[in-house]
Amino acid sequence: MKKNLDTKDHLDTKDHEEKRSEKIPAPSRWPYATPGIPDELFARGNVPMTKGEVRSLTLSRLRLKTDHRVVDVGAGTGSISIECALMLKRGCVFAVEKDEKAIEIIRENTRLFGVRNVEIIHDFAPEALEKINPVDRIVVGGTGGKMKEIFQTCRDLLLPGGIMVLNCILLESMAGCLHLLGDTGFTSPEILSLQIARGESLGNGTVLRPLNPVFIVTTKKRG
Amino acid sequence: MKKNLDTKDHLDTKDHEEKRSEKIPAPSRWPYATPGIPDELFARGNVPMTKGEVRSLTLSRLRLKTDHRVVDVGAGTGSISIECALMLKRGCVFAVEKDEKAIEIIRENTRLFGVRNVEIIHDFAPEALEKINPVDRIVVGGTGGKMKEIFQTCRDLLLPGGIMVLNCILLESMAGCLHLLGDTGFTSPEILSLQIARGESLGNGTVLRPLNPVFIVTTKKRG
Amino acid sequence: MKKNLDTKDHLDTKDHEEKRSEKIPAPSRWPYATPGIPDELFARGNVPMTKGEVRSLTLSRLRLKTDHRVVDVGAGTGSISIECALMLKRGCVFAVEKDEKAIEIIRENTRLFGVRNVEIIHDFAPEALEKINPVDRIVVGGTGGKMKEIFQTCRDLLLPGGIMVLNCILLESMAGCLHLLGDTGFTSPEILSLQIARGESLGNGTVLRPLNPVFIVTTKKRG
Amino acid sequence: MKKNLDTKDHLDTKDHEEKRSEKIPAPSRWPYATPGIPDELFARGNVPMTKGEVRSLTLSRLRLKTDHRVVDVGAGTGSISIECALMLKRGCVFAVEKDEKAIEIIRENTRLFGVRNVEIIHDFAPEALEKINPVDRIVVGGTGGKMKEIFQTCRDLLLPGGIMVLNCILLESMAGCLHLLGDTGFTSPEILSLQIARGESLGNGTVLRPLNPVFIVTTKKRG
Repeated sequence: MKKNLDTKDHLDTKDHEEKRSEKIPAPSRWPYATPGIPDELFARGNVPMTKGEVRSLTLSRLRLKTDHRVVDVGAGTGSISIECALMLKRGCVFAVEKDEKAIEIIRENTRLFGVRNVEIIHDFAPEALEKINPVDRIVVGGTGGKMKEIFQTCRDLLLPGGIMVLNCILLESMAGCLHLLGDTGFTSPEILSLQIARGESLGNGTVLRPLNPVFIVTTKKRG
Repeated sequence: MKKNLDTKDHLDTKDHEEKRSEKIPAPSRWPYATPGIPDELFARGNVPMTKGEVRSLTLSRLRLKTDHRVVDVGAGTGSISIECALMLKRGCVFAVEKDEKAIEIIRENTRLFGVRNVEIIHDFAPEALEKINPVDRIVVGGTGGKMKEIFQTCRDLLLPGGIMVLNCILLESMAGCLHLLGDTGFTSPEILSLQIARGESLGNGTVLRPLNPVFIVTTKKRG
Repeated sequence: MKKNLDTKDHLDTKDHEEKRSEKIPAPSRWPYATPGIPDELFARGNVPMTKGEVRSLTLSRLRLKTDHRVVDVGAGTGSISIECALMLKRGCVFAVEKDEKAIEIIRENTRLFGVRNVEIIHDFAPEALEKINPVDRIVVGGTGGKMKEIFQTCRDLLLPGGIMVLNCILLESMAGCLHLLGDTGFTSPEILSLQIARGESLGNGTVLRPLNPVFIVTTKKRG
Repeated sequence: MKKNLDTKDHLDTKDHEEKRSEKIPAPSRWPYATPGIPDELFARGNVPMTKGEVRSLTLSRLRLKTDHRVVDVGAGTGSISIECALMLKRGCVFAVEKDEKAIEIIRENTRLFGVRNVEIIHDFAPEALEKINPVDRIVVGGTGGKMKEIFQTCRDLLLPGGIMVLNCILLESMAGCLHLLGDTGFTSPEILSLQIARGESLGNGTVLRPLNPVFIVTTKKRG
């Protein structure tokens, strides 16, 4: 009585590599070395999730080493935390999230993917960040309006040469990065603007369904 | 007497993690576990190169395991071959390329990145593909007009459950995928349309410089 | 029982220029000389409508003169027919549409905008096109799979130097244009790929909501 | 000594409607009622020009009536001024531009297109704007860093219900619009994000060449 959870991913039918279910042991849920887990493999509830393509590019900008310590601020479903955790064979992720329901989803996703190196912190940023020891990388999914304070705290939290990557859905957040990063001790940011669309088969052909545009902002601790 | 080759990558100035030069031992040229090597780190000559962001997403669609055997058809500068090779701790890449100058560039890039698991095949597709033993993954950068023949040969070359990913710059190539993959023994393809732009600092602000749009097509061997 | 269709257009609050309602006389519904009527001003029911931005660019590619005769194949809501009709002071539009509900919507829109130079033809293409006298311009919103036949009929219908513009939502339709236009007596097409997003105010900032990507294909009668 | 500016527009070969040259009388240079003049029909020198597709959408957002008075701030080549002037049968355009070479190009373009309702003002904004009587529409191509002052002057210059449209190439300019328009007496802006690419025929197929991404910002005088 196999049950394939992954109904939307039409690449996967009849694929013996990827019989996915909550019953099978966690390591086989994403047995690949490359990031870019399909959205459907995550538990998500009503929590907004960073789409797979954006997640892949975010990880690419993070430039992870396997022993890095990473903070995920505004972790949401934890999808980025999970992808990082799978790369960090000897490192770990701190998933900071204020929303209680999201915390439950993160917990479920760590179980589903069998990762033990994600520490979930149910608290607000920037306060939550002050209790964490220095880290190599920070990824920011949401700042809840306290951009400047969070940037200052993140700067203190980062080890020298550390990288911070922000996913900005709001134009105002992207603008805030351009405006505030220099003043808070970061290098002038690299901006990536993404307009990605996925083909979807209709009866008579293939339409392109656009993902929401997003800006990926990458910066480094200065000096 | 430090010399930073990586002049375009303004994130990297003063970064002790990433002092890059042709003199330094290869393993430190890309010491990260995540794909997405900056374009500037590759030798390229006049050979067209898959841009970093497109490469990251291509690897993500390939779903590599560390022991996979991969073929890169129309390898160009070899940038995708190199990124794959770095992930394939116990696997290998066959880089197939017809152009002699490109072959030189691939060779230089394998040296620069210190990868020993790339076998360079200077020959035309599909002929070159017939001499390779079955593989897990195929990535196609260019088909030189012989799409149908290449698809048929690729199907035979792929192990069951194997994945093929194509980067299509030409609208006609993308259309050819939609038209021909089903008839040549592949599943109906997933299409990803990418319009990515990179921020560039001018004196008075930041403009977005668009990368050439590209379609990433993903399909699986059927049956 | 007034019904203000224009609820979403937040530019229009308190604007004495644009008090819109079904009661006000038609000429004031779009008193402007420029194309690009907001979507909300049209009746639409459940019929899919070409978005305002795509309509503006389609009209731009049509290069209308005020005395032109235009055919709109697969007219849908008639939004493109209406925009053309408003430009054609001494010309006219033939709106060809097979769907009965859409025909009702087109009729309502001609009333709402007070245009008298739209002839509505409730029939299938290409048959319907054979009864029309030669025209200067053709715009194609949908071909219902009979692309080649429609192209051939359109070629015969066009006056020398006539222009045809196609809005392609399906990748297969765009591919069909590339493949078939040359063989059916048209010049090789100009392609425009549109990825347009509209800002939307949320409580805490502005997100970009993408329109569905579309290809605008422009071609001319050859010889 | 004929010189055909229109070398790139491959739709136009052999088209008796559009024999363009500097010798032919101006009205035939753009005999169409629709905006969207091809870039190649303009003189441009080294002055950056708003691309045809962006111009069409800008005009669409301006919602011109034929008797409107329009100001074009940072007119560049005057391409937007010309398109407006052709629509304004009884109205006029004030083309404000600081750069001397651009002024020459604007002058040449008014000659080429035979428009007599463009008044060229060689001066800096916002100073130049203070000498103009109230207008119905303002289009802003560049602000040269004095955004707030220009917005305030533009607000005073606009008649009640007047519309201002800004083309923002810089992320900082778009951010400035979001930040400053409300404080300077304008409604909260509508944002349009454009990623448009044009097909280009190569020997073996069609590639998409992206235009530079641009934000079109539309706002109204408040109160």
